[in-house]
Amino acid sequence: MRTSIATVCLSGTLTDKLHAAADAGFDGVEVFEPDLIASPSSPEEIVALAARLGLSLDLYQPFRDAEGVSEEEFVRVLHRARSKFALMQRLGIDTMLVCSNVGTATVDDDEVSASQLRRLGDAAAAAGVRLAYEALAWGRYVDDYRRSWRIVELADHDAVGLCLDSFHILSRGHDPAEIEEIPGSKIFFLQLADAPALTMDVLSWSRHHRLFPGEGAFDLGAFVGHVLRTGYDGPLSLEVFNDVFRQTDVVRTARQARRSLTWLEDLVETRRLPAVAEPAGFDFVEVRAEDTGEADVLLGQLGFTFRGRHRSKDARLWTEGPARVVCNEQHARNQSPSLAAVGFEVADPAVSAARARALQAPTVYRRTLANEQELPAFRAPDGTEVFLGPVSSGDAAWVPEFDGGQEPTPPLLTGIDHVNLAEPWQCFDEAVLFYSSVLGLTPAASQEIAAPNGLVRSQVVRSASGSCRLALNVAPLAWDQAGGFPQHVAFSTDDVAAVARRAVDRGLVPLAIPTNYYDDLMARFDLSSSEVEAMAELGLLHDRDATGDFTHFYTATVGGVFFEVVQRRGGYDGYGAPNAGVRLAAQHRRPR
Amino acid sequence: MRTSIATVCLSGTLTDKLHAAADAGFDGVEVFEPDLIASPSSPEEIVALAARLGLSLDLYQPFRDAEGVSEEEFVRVLHRARSKFALMQRLGIDTMLVCSNVGTATVDDDEVSASQLRRLGDAAAAAGVRLAYEALAWGRYVDDYRRSWRIVELADHDAVGLCLDSFHILSRGHDPAEIEEIPGSKIFFLQLADAPALTMDVLSWSRHHRLFPGEGAFDLGAFVGHVLRTGYDGPLSLEVFNDVFRQTDVVRTARQARRSLTWLEDLVETRRLPAVAEPAGFDFVEVRAEDTGEADVLLGQLGFTFRGRHRSKDARLWTEGPARVVCNEQHARNQSPSLAAVGFEVADPAVSAARARALQAPTVYRRTLANEQELPAFRAPDGTEVFLGPVSSGDAAWVPEFDGGQEPTPPLLTGIDHVNLAEPWQCFDEAVLFYSSVLGLTPAASQEIAAPNGLVRSQVVRSASGSCRLALNVAPLAWDQAGGFPQHVAFSTDDVAAVARRAVDRGLVPLAIPTNYYDDLMARFDLSSSEVEAMAELGLLHDRDATGDFTHFYTATVGGVFFEVVQRRGGYDGYGAPNAGVRLAAQHRRPR
Repeated sequence: MRTSIATVCLSGTLTDKLHAAADAGFDGVEVFEPDLIASPSSPEEIVALAARLGLSLDLYQPFRDAEGVSEEEFVRVLHRARSKFALMQRLGIDTMLVCSNVGTATVDDDEVSASQLRRLGDAAAAAGVRLAYEALAWGRYVDDYRRSWRIVELADHDAVGLCLDSFHILSRGHDPAEIEEIPGSKIFFLQLADAPALTMDVLSWSRHHRLFPGEGAFDLGAFVGHVLRTGYDGPLSLEVFNDVFRQTDVVRTARQARRSLTWLEDLVETRRLPAVAEPAGFDFVEVRAEDTGEADVLLGQLGFTFRGRHRSKDARLWTEGPARVVCNEQHARNQSPSLAAVGFEVADPAVSAARARALQAPTVYRRTLANEQELPAFRAPDGTEVFLGPVSSGDAAWVPEFDGGQEPTPPLLTGIDHVNLAEPWQCFDEAVLFYSSVLGLTPAASQEIAAPNGLVRSQVVRSASGSCRLALNVAPLAWDQAGGFPQHVAFSTDDVAAVARRAVDRGLVPLAIPTNYYDDLMARFDLSSSEVEAMAELGLLHDRDATGDFTHFYTATVGGVFFEVVQRRGGYDGYGAPNAGVRLAAQHRRPR
Repeated sequence: MRTSIATVCLSGTLTDKLHAAADAGFDGVEVFEPDLIASPSSPEEIVALAARLGLSLDLYQPFRDAEGVSEEEFVRVLHRARSKFALMQRLGIDTMLVCSNVGTATVDDDEVSASQLRRLGDAAAAAGVRLAYEALAWGRYVDDYRRSWRIVELADHDAVGLCLDSFHILSRGHDPAEIEEIPGSKIFFLQLADAPALTMDVLSWSRHHRLFPGEGAFDLGAFVGHVLRTGYDGPLSLEVFNDVFRQTDVVRTARQARRSLTWLEDLVETRRLPAVAEPAGFDFVEVRAEDTGEADVLLGQLGFTFRGRHRSKDARLWTEGPARVVCNEQHARNQSPSLAAVGFEVADPAVSAARARALQAPTVYRRTLANEQELPAFRAPDGTEVFLGPVSSGDAAWVPEFDGGQEPTPPLLTGIDHVNLAEPWQCFDEAVLFYSSVLGLTPAASQEIAAPNGLVRSQVVRSASGSCRLALNVAPLAWDQAGGFPQHVAFSTDDVAAVARRAVDRGLVPLAIPTNYYDDLMARFDLSSSEVEAMAELGLLHDRDATGDFTHFYTATVGGVFFEVVQRRGGYDGYGAPNAGVRLAAQHRRPR
C-alpha cells in the first residue's frame, strides 16, 4: 500500500519535511496548512520539489469549523473554502480534510450539517477536489465516526466522504469493528496514530502524546484490518502530534515513522517481512573504554574467569557459566567505561538480520577476519550496538577467538538476567519500537523511580519467557549535564549470598546500603534479625510479592557501568523496584 | 504560624534537604520515609542535625494501607506500625501520617476502619505518638475528607485525628467549607499544595504536577481560611510532588517554597507583608551586550531618539514618547545582546521593594552615584533584573542622567505594550510566583505555539488594566543547545503602518513574512487585496477577534533580542497568537 505522512509529524520547515519524508521512503505527504502558511516557498515551488523528490501531495489539512453553523456563518465558510480549493488546485491536491466543528457550531442537527457539507461538496466538485470529513474526538457535536458517517451518508455527494483517524476512534473507546459497514469507496483518507494509555482530556492527549504505530497501547493491527476489509485502497498515512518529535532531528524522526508503517504493514499482511523471532537469551554484553581495567577487576571479583584476549582485536573475554562479558578497548580513545553492545541469541540470525534491514535498522560494521564468526549487528536508537548470534549451548562459537586465558570453573551464575540501558529523552519511543519490531521483545511494566535528583522512567521490554529482558531508562533532564544515567548488567544466580560472599572475599566492596533500609525491611517482612544482619553484611537487598521473592546486590559504578547479581525465588517476575530508590541514593552519594 | 515542608518536595539526600529547609527559613520538616530509608544517617544523627539547624521534625509520613483490611492482614499492619512507632521515638516525632488504604483494603465499612484505627491508636498512644488519618483522593474506599472525618469520629480516640491535604480535597472538587465543622483539635496536621488546572487522572496529577501555593489554580487562601477557623494551630506544611522540583537545586527550591508560604500567610492574614501594588506600566527596558550597536541601529530605525550617554555608566538611552530603552555595555564582556533588565513604575517603590525583600527576592546592587536616582532592584528567577521606579508623566526622573543626545520629536509610539521573556524550564513556576507575589501581576492566558523546532509554552502575567504585560516563555528542550529562545519588547502605537513606513524609510528590513500567509489572511478575513498588499509590503501581520483587531510587525533579531510594534484596535486583548508560529518560522529560517 502507499504510505504517507502529515508534515505536522516532523520538525523544521516545509521543505525540510519534504526532503526527510522522501529520504525515509514515504510515497506522499499530507500538507498541514500552518506549515504551508509559514513557508516562503510558493505552492508551485512545493509542487516542483515534491515532484523531484517523488512525493505525492495526498491531502490538504485541516479545514476547521465548516458545518453545523448558522447560514450567516456558512457564507464565511464558503468564502474560506473556495479560497482553499483554489490553493489546492495550485498544489495539485485533490482531497481536503474537513474536521468536525469545534469552535463555531451552533446547530446540533445532522440534516443541517449534511446540507452544509453537500453545498461545500458542490463547490469542491466545481474545483475538482473532494472533502474527507472527520469526527474529532472533541468535536462540539460530532465526536464519533459513526455519526460523521451518518452525516456523510445524508450529504450523499460524490465529493463528500470520510476521513478515519485511529486516534479519534480508539481514544474514545469507540468500537472500530463498525468501520466494516462503511463502503471503502466512501473512506477518502485514513490517518494512523498510536498513543500511550493515559487518563487525561483527549485534546491534550492528542496534541502532545500521540505516537507512531507500535510505540503505544492501541491495537492498530486490528484497526487497520477493519479499514482494509472495507476495500479502502488509499494510503496508510501517519498523523502524529508529539512534543518530542516536533523538536528532534527531522531525518531521524521520518525514518522512525517509516519503520512504524513497515512494521504495521507486516502486521496487517499487506507486506511480508522476514519473520520476527524473540531472542532466546543474551549472547554477551560488551563494556567499552580506553581502559576497561576497573570493569575487569569487578568481573574477577564476581567470579568470572578470564578466558583470554581476542586474537585480532584489543578485547578480553570474561565468562561465568553462560554469562559472557567482553571488555573492549578497540577504538575507544578517551572513553570511560560504557555498555556499548549487547549480543542476543536468536533462532536464525540471518532471518533476524534480514528483518532488521527491512525495518531500516542502521547496520554496524566491524572488521571480521576470515576465520572469525561474523555476527550481524545493528545500531539501536540509543546507540547500543545490537549483535545477533545463534542459540548456543555452552560456549558460543566465537569464544575460541579469545585465547591465553584460563579454563572456566563450575559457575555460580546462571546467565544474564537483564540489561539496563539509558535512553536519551529524544529517542525513548523510537527505542521501544526498535526493540519490539526488530527483536520481537514485548513492552511490559513501566515504572517511575525516585532518585535523589529526579524521577527515572523505566520501561521493560522482554521476551515472553523472561529469558531476555531489557530495562529502558529515561533519566531526569538535569542528569544530562551530570554525566547521564549509569547502565548495568544484572547476572542471575541460584545462590546470591554465595556469589556475594565469594566476591567480598575477593575484595569487592558492595554498594553501601543504609542501616535504615534494613530496619524498614524488618518492619515490612517477617524476617529474623539474624537473616537481616546477614543481608546487611553483604549489602544484599530484598523484595517480595505474592508469587515469590528477590534478593540482589550491586557493585560500585565504574565510568558509566555497574553490575548487579540477582536471585529470583518462586514466581517473582519483577526487578526489586522498591529498592531502586535506595540504590540510586547510594550511587548519588558516590558520584562517578 | 509555624511553617514546615515535606522532605519529598526537595532534591538531594535527607541531610541536603534539612540544610536547605533551614536555610530558607522553615521551622520544621515532614520526614518522608523513603528519604530516611535511603539515608546513611542514623535517626539519632538526623535528630542532632535538625536540632543544630533549628528545625523541628513535625511528621513521619506516609504509613500506607492500614485500615479496612482483614484481621489477618491487620496483624501485619500492627507489626509494621509498632516498628515505625519505635523509629518515631528515636526521631522524637510525635505524629504519623496514615493515608487511606489504596492497596490492601477489602472491607468497605467505616466501623471496621474506625475499629482498626482505634487499635492502632492504642499502640500509638502506648508509644507516645499519634496518628493523622488522611483521605487520599484515590483511596480505594475512603477518598473524601468528610468520610475520613466520620471514621476518626467513630474511632473516638485521643491519638487518632485527621490530616487535611489541600490537593486531595480541591483536586476532587470537594467543598472545603465543611472543614469548619471539624474541631481544630482533631486536625492533627495540614498539608498544602497548589496545582495547575489539568484534566487527568488524579494520581498522575498529584505525583507529577503539584505546585507550591500561588503557582497553580487552587484557591488556597479560602482553603486555609476554613482550616484556621476551626482553631487549627499546627504548622502550615508544604507537600508538593513535582517532576521539576525533584531535580532542581535544593537550596533554590526551598527558598521558592518558603516564598510561597510567606505569600499565603499574607493572603490569610496571619502575617502582613507590605502591600502589593501592581505596576502602572513599564519604566524602561535594558538591552545589555559588550556591543549593543545593532540594537541601537534598530531603535533609531523604529523612530527612537538618542537621548545621550549616561554620565557615569557605559550606557545609552533611547526614547520614543514614554517608551524608554537603555543600551548598556557596562560589565558585559563577551555578551551578545540580551534583555537584561525591566523597570516597572509602581505607586510607591519603597513599599514594593520592602514587599520584595519580605518575599526573599534577591537584591540586585548597582553602583549609584550621589546625584543619581536610586531604583531598588531584584533578580527574578529567570535572571531578569527587575527595577522599581515611581510613576512618571513624561520623562522619568533618571532621564537627565543621560546627556549629549537629542531632543525628542513628537512620538508615534505610545509606550511598551508587553515584554516577552525566556524562562528556563527549571524556573517557570517559580517565575510565575515571583511576578505575581512580588509585583502583583496576574497570570492570564497560557498558550502553546508551534515553532518549526518544537512547542513553545507561553504564559502571560499582567496588570488588570493591561498597562503592564509580561509573556513568560518556555522553549522546547532542544533549543537549550541551539542558543535559547529570543526575548523581545513590543512597543505600542496608534498607527502601526506609519511606524513601519518610517522604519523602512530609515533602512529597517522587517522580518520577512511569506506570501502564503497573506493568501491565508484573505481567505480568513474580509480584507481587500489592496489592504493585504499594503500589509505585505511592510511585513505587517494581522489578527482579529470578536472585540477588535491587532496589527503588528517584527524587526530582525540581534543577539537574543528583537523588537515588535503593535497596534490594538477595539477591545482586542491578545498578542496575535495565530501569527506567532509564522514569526517563529521566519526567525528559524534566519538563525541568529
